Amino acid sequence: MITTEDRLEILELYGVQSHAVDGGDGEAWAATYAEDGVFESPTYQLTARGRDELRAFAENSNGAALARGEQFRHVVTGIVLDEIEEGRVRARAYMTILATTAEGSRVDRSLVVHDELVRVAGSWLFRERKVYRD
Amino acid sequence: MITTEDRLEILELYGVQSHAVDGGDGEAWAATYAEDGVFESPTYQLTARGRDELRAFAENSNGAALARGEQFRHVVTGIVLDEIEEGRVRARAYMTILATTAEGSRVDRSLVVHDELVRVAGSWLFRERKVYRD
Amino acid sequence: MITTEDRLEILELYGVQSHAVDGGDGEAWAATYAEDGVFESPTYQLTARGRDELRAFAENSNGAALARGEQFRHVVTGIVLDEIEEGRVRARAYMTILATTAEGSRVDRSLVVHDELVRVAGSWLFRERKVYRD
Repeated sequence: MITTEDRLEILELYGVQSHAVDGGDGEAWAATYAEDGVFESPTYQLTARGRDELRAFAENSNGAALARGEQFRHVVTGIVLDEIEEGRVRARAYMTILATTAEGSRVDRSLVVHDELVRVAGSWLFRERKVYRD
Repeated sequence: MITTEDRLEILELYGVQSHAVDGGDGEAWAATYAEDGVFESPTYQLTARGRDELRAFAENSNGAALARGEQFRHVVTGIVLDEIEEGRVRARAYMTILATTAEGSRVDRSLVVHDELVRVAGSWLFRERKVYRD
Repeated sequence: MITTEDRLEILELYGVQSHAVDGGDGEAWAATYAEDGVFESPTYQLTARGRDELRAFAENSNGAALARGEQFRHVVTGIVLDEIEEGRVRARAYMTILATTAEGSRVDRSLVVHDELVRVAGSWLFRERKVYRD
């Protein structure tokens, strides 16, 4: 059973991730993953494994956006959770990336994420994310 | 009183709906409604009553989008709940439909939904939805 | 500790705010603030203090949008809460303003809000908001 506390902690973790990645704090973003966390983007054939690679990925992608004059915002909605077993949860969500430049704001892209979260030492963390681009 | 469990179950139900309708699973979408559920769009003068009509509506609207080369995402935010009586809840929410094509993503339309939910055999379901287009 | 009840009440308060401001109900929007609540937009060099100024600000900004033929929707996501002390919470969130006209819907602007909430007579209210435009 996913308790109300678990559920709210996980929902908040998505918010923490967005603020971290869009704020250029790759370390805080990587810290939302388990030590052996994996981020996989089949559409980009990219995989980041472990916190060092995860941090580098977040910093590079945010840095590249800023270099183009774009402020990204990762807008996450439609989070649905299913328990796999005690301490392991599968999640699906929509992730819309907004990009704002001097010209204005637009929807940069629409993604669906499939996540697995685990409870490690009492806290929920992402173990695996697969990103699918519409 | 709407308990925290009720509230989180209802919030999740909106997520389940979005994934179902955008994934072309009309049956799963219809299953979020009570057997006698009603979906009403005054702007389109459309009413679907009961799960068969609801399923057909969801499949047709998603099918029509795909036929135009569009992947829809129903982004729901601003959900506010008010108890009518024990086991009956009124909800208001924003529903933004994003459409993604080979050319990119855009806001297709902005809607407000007014819902009534009922608890049936321990689970929350939609009994009535009215959709208003901005 | 922020209880699950506190958290859900605060999340809902953001929804109440959006429906109030976009529905032109400046009084309901101002009522989500404490009596001495402050709204500050450094980018616009605007500050509203107390419920009268808050109500006037909400009514004017919505009225101006309607006069231009625009229906605004304040879409709030990525809400992250941190307790400052018992009865005081710091919040960060994304606020995307959608504007719909006869021509269609678009992202008008992308904001980040930094809020402080207080519990007054058992209910959570905004004491201070700072708005940052991307």
